[in-house]
Amino acid sequence: MVSTRRSTVSTTGQGDVHDVTSAAVAAVAESHLRAGIVTAFVVGSTAGITTLEFESGVVGDLGRALEVVAPRDGEYEHHLRWHDDNGSSHVRAALIGPSVTIPFVDGQLMLGTWQQIALIELDTRGRRREVVMQVMGE
Amino acid sequence: MVSTRRSTVSTTGQGDVHDVTSAAVAAVAESHLRAGIVTAFVVGSTAGITTLEFESGVVGDLGRALEVVAPRDGEYEHHLRWHDDNGSSHVRAALIGPSVTIPFVDGQLMLGTWQQIALIELDTRGRRREVVMQVMGE
Amino acid sequence: MVSTRRSTVSTTGQGDVHDVTSAAVAAVAESHLRAGIVTAFVVGSTAGITTLEFESGVVGDLGRALEVVAPRDGEYEHHLRWHDDNGSSHVRAALIGPSVTIPFVDGQLMLGTWQQIALIELDTRGRRREVVMQVMGE
Repeated sequence: MVSTRRSTVSTTGQGDVHDVTSAAVAAVAESHLRAGIVTAFVVGSTAGITTLEFESGVVGDLGRALEVVAPRDGEYEHHLRWHDDNGSSHVRAALIGPSVTIPFVDGQLMLGTWQQIALIELDTRGRRREVVMQVMGE
Repeated sequence: MVSTRRSTVSTTGQGDVHDVTSAAVAAVAESHLRAGIVTAFVVGSTAGITTLEFESGVVGDLGRALEVVAPRDGEYEHHLRWHDDNGSSHVRAALIGPSVTIPFVDGQLMLGTWQQIALIELDTRGRRREVVMQVMGE
Repeated sequence: MVSTRRSTVSTTGQGDVHDVTSAAVAAVAESHLRAGIVTAFVVGSTAGITTLEFESGVVGDLGRALEVVAPRDGEYEHHLRWHDDNGSSHVRAALIGPSVTIPFVDGQLMLGTWQQIALIELDTRGRRREVVMQVMGE
């Protein structure tokens, strides 16, 4: 009924996006469940998870849009308070969110052909990210 | 324990928003479950699902805000690479996300009076959208 | 299998952010479930829920970013139509979303050390907010 799959992904810093769809597919297969939902969740407050068409053009375009909302070299209270440089990372992560939930039926995730589950690194430096695929169903 | 309801919605293109709350209500009713969650999910990478007050003013205001972040007539790598015109659609969809999860208790979705589940078309042309209501509970 | 915990939070208006992680922890403890997911959901269309590092710098920075996308004193159709002043609230809430879903294993939420569940008040006035923690699992 509940099946957990954890994996780690090494990233290179802000703007690095990884396709983690195969981890979700594997999690559903390992669960032997037929129907339910997978929650893809990233641990930490400077990364996000969403779905997108995983191709380098879209990845670059998303980075430029986030730069409008939360410029990397902008001024942040978080910097002043903690002598840190990742205020843009925190804001972007809060906007994108840490998780996405995808239904599956007959053991198949209901994603579109051009729709992948993407881990979006938003921190200013590379990180080792823990991604949890929580499968629930019957 | 798991109940799936699929429906299709025909849209007219970017900025077209549909209230799909009634499909979620029907999915819960058909499941005969008392308590749990409904995940409303749209298949594809150029549409989104969220909750909002479904009235034309808010719908227009949301479109103008998305235009600030990802202008429809902006320059996108995705266009250069694929000779496509929907770079803004991909960026907006990644930001809004493809799904929202709503609790229900005693067979009733816990939405506010002015809070509807909205399918947001973000592509530059009309599409037939598949919306999945995945009900889980007991 | 399903356990519901409701609580209310009084807010002071736009930009007021509350850490509701302890309510999620309590909900999991009360459920006596070992593994599953918690959906944290806020009722209403002018508030949001996400995860962030709950410290006043990040909270302020997020507010400034939202001001870029949906300025509080901007012009909104919603204002013209309903003689209201919270158009920015509706747009921001649709972007952030009303819920976040967090996995738990061995009775422990899989949040990072600096990752809290945040209720984000977006309305222009203080509200009493109903937050639902829906726990599902085994």
